[in-house]
Amino acid sequence: MDEGALVLFSGGQDSTTCLAWALARFSRVETIGFDYGQRHRIELDCRARLREGISTLDPAWAARLGEDHMVSLDALGAISDTALTRETAIAFEADGLPNTFVPGRNIVFLTFAAALAYRRDLRRIVGGMCETDFSGYPDCRDDTIKALQVALNLGMDRRFVLDTPLMRIDKAATWALAKETGGQPLVDLIVEDTHTCYLGERGERHDWGYGCGTCPACDLRAKGYWAFAVNKP
Amino acid sequence: MDEGALVLFSGGQDSTTCLAWALARFSRVETIGFDYGQRHRIELDCRARLREGISTLDPAWAARLGEDHMVSLDALGAISDTALTRETAIAFEADGLPNTFVPGRNIVFLTFAAALAYRRDLRRIVGGMCETDFSGYPDCRDDTIKALQVALNLGMDRRFVLDTPLMRIDKAATWALAKETGGQPLVDLIVEDTHTCYLGERGERHDWGYGCGTCPACDLRAKGYWAFAVNKP
Repeated sequence: MDEGALVLFSGGQDSTTCLAWALARFSRVETIGFDYGQRHRIELDCRARLREGISTLDPAWAARLGEDHMVSLDALGAISDTALTRETAIAFEADGLPNTFVPGRNIVFLTFAAALAYRRDLRRIVGGMCETDFSGYPDCRDDTIKALQVALNLGMDRRFVLDTPLMRIDKAATWALAKETGGQPLVDLIVEDTHTCYLGERGERHDWGYGCGTCPACDLRAKGYWAFAVNKP
Repeated sequence: MDEGALVLFSGGQDSTTCLAWALARFSRVETIGFDYGQRHRIELDCRARLREGISTLDPAWAARLGEDHMVSLDALGAISDTALTRETAIAFEADGLPNTFVPGRNIVFLTFAAALAYRRDLRRIVGGMCETDFSGYPDCRDDTIKALQVALNLGMDRRFVLDTPLMRIDKAATWALAKETGGQPLVDLIVEDTHTCYLGERGERHDWGYGCGTCPACDLRAKGYWAFAVNKP
């Protein structure tokens, strides 16, 4: 029996790829999601459908996929007060950070995940943080995650491993990782059922999925998909 | 204009001493409290009275004391499921930790405090964590706090300082620090208006304050008080 894993699962492209990555490696995989009044709640609504879809891809994955945990974090929305939870235009502020920045959001998520992993006796904590997509969030950086692993392990007296399989790869390589992990059926599932758009719009169907097609998240997703689609064998 | 401070203020003896410590040093001091369904809610009810009382001790302190922020963290109680939030006896578990242990509680508190300090433009974050009181909470250890400072500063791209003035001192020295910082009036205020009892009981009036007198927190407080009272000049 290997170490189980807890996957930070928002229902987006990145975390769905991470969920598949974990299901291919660990014998027990649970998921955690956070509800903090974010504007892209539609992403959270995709979670159940994605969990169901992903478990049809492989009987072994179906056997490994365990409980889902939803954590309500209204306090995070209250403290942060940024464009991601309000009806404001997304823009870049003077310090170069997008105004969707919730300070330390991923630190909060990973700390709650670790508290839950402690209770569930899971050792690997898997998150889709990535420092190559240029969004500039400092809490996605590899340095932050590695320092946090030390703080969490000291603070909880455990030996958690924070796994970030997407940390050093771009969006095109994330699509390729999905293909490699779950074949074309996983790519199709991600196109059809994951949602990345900041504006929370399902929008029209593009080759890369649904969304407004113009916000920074849609733009990143579309460009990554086309770079992947053009280069794929 | 110096760096402002945000004090983690629960309304207990330790955090009240920390609040005074901060008021004696920084020109702008705000407070943050967390409500996570804890059994000692009475401690939270003391907060307003203590903030008012402490600002009567010194006109400079009154001018420095700024806003109070309450953060609702029901999710923490839901995840942790320990004796502190339920009607269960307090005991020590097989791993030597008291079953009041909420994994990573102080990491969550300090991360939320940092997110708020980011928005309020405060640089010092002051907490009453202490590694000498033998409660065994690993998230109170100096190593944890220092590793977390690194993680928070990397993750928020700031230079916060996590101040823990009680880290290396025992309960007797905490009483002495209060005396040194705010004189006998501060000691009297702490005796009268702070609450430490795990069981949430106001109980009878002892020289060291109110409480059940027998739980680990009362025991620690009483012993510390007597060690202080016997040695004081």
